[in-house]
Amino acid sequence: MLYIVGVGPGDPELITLKAVKALERCERVAGWRSVLLRLGLSEEKAVELTYRNQEERLRELAELSASRDVCIAVHGDPTVSDWELLDRVRELGVPFEVINGVSSLNLALARAGLDMAHVVFITQHARSPQSLSDAALPGRSLVVFPPLDAKGRSELWEELKRFSQCKILLMERLSLPGERVVELKEREHLLNATDLSVVVVKC
Amino acid sequence: MLYIVGVGPGDPELITLKAVKALERCERVAGWRSVLLRLGLSEEKAVELTYRNQEERLRELAELSASRDVCIAVHGDPTVSDWELLDRVRELGVPFEVINGVSSLNLALARAGLDMAHVVFITQHARSPQSLSDAALPGRSLVVFPPLDAKGRSELWEELKRFSQCKILLMERLSLPGERVVELKEREHLLNATDLSVVVVKC
Repeated sequence: MLYIVGVGPGDPELITLKAVKALERCERVAGWRSVLLRLGLSEEKAVELTYRNQEERLRELAELSASRDVCIAVHGDPTVSDWELLDRVRELGVPFEVINGVSSLNLALARAGLDMAHVVFITQHARSPQSLSDAALPGRSLVVFPPLDAKGRSELWEELKRFSQCKILLMERLSLPGERVVELKEREHLLNATDLSVVVVKC
Repeated sequence: MLYIVGVGPGDPELITLKAVKALERCERVAGWRSVLLRLGLSEEKAVELTYRNQEERLRELAELSASRDVCIAVHGDPTVSDWELLDRVRELGVPFEVINGVSSLNLALARAGLDMAHVVFITQHARSPQSLSDAALPGRSLVVFPPLDAKGRSELWEELKRFSQCKILLMERLSLPGERVVELKEREHLLNATDLSVVVVKC
């Protein structure tokens, strides 16, 4: 079987028992470099996915999944901003199971004192980044996974200017050593934030 | 310290290591009856919350938390539909920490093949239930925690009629034995669904 496993937001204790068991059981565990580094897998077990090799590696995993347990590990929860990966897995046409995890989205809500029922989630970790203006709903705040590139972050900074009546928080390394939650007031803070940052527009 | 602990959607393996440790460490664990039953705690440890006793029990826990570790356990994740409880805890004015968990919201997304970035979440598990029409956003589906009472469910059924162009799914007992995902076509299925059901309006 092929498992898509959410390994949680970063804190090694914020992984589920089910994810731990799946990662132990799987003969191969594929993932982006940053995920594999966190999991500390043996060289024989780890399969590094890159933008260039992912199609081939996923096809190999799908074939192997007919006779073996194999995993694809993702940060957080697979249903939060991994639909491009899940679409690619669906296209392979093999059965798979999602093992949900704790997302950094939920940690951001806890830190900001917000509830999922009072926010709209937007991700810019995708080929077609979602815009803030498409997600405006009365009475709801926004939680944004900012772009990973400088150009995208500059554009997000421009979009954020429309929300001057709201409190804008930048959260970095949630649940990891060096976690930091600050009010986002300067463009450079957003540009220099880590890949694992979250922006909360609290209105 | 006072911990608000998400114990996951139901499957005992979908709890985090951090939640397991907190529940073990805490001298008292408070929660609604259905959560306490799942956790199988000793009588000395479990503190049952009811609508009538919760204010008093929470005040006692807050006092105890100055010198002991105490927990409030909730289904799923505390940031998904527990803001009324969290507001009451904030009013007590003592420090507390949220331990996030896996929500049935994320399981519903996995079963429906949806992503958090393409839905709006609505809960009707609250004193002022949210309405579906307030959550309409182009390109987004809806995930709804339906009301717990028959009157509320009848009203939800009427609201759902506006979404005849969408696929409406009723999900019950997600991750538990007897899990069931069916197309919701009859009012009675919604009225008779369990307390732990989720409705997905996939547009």
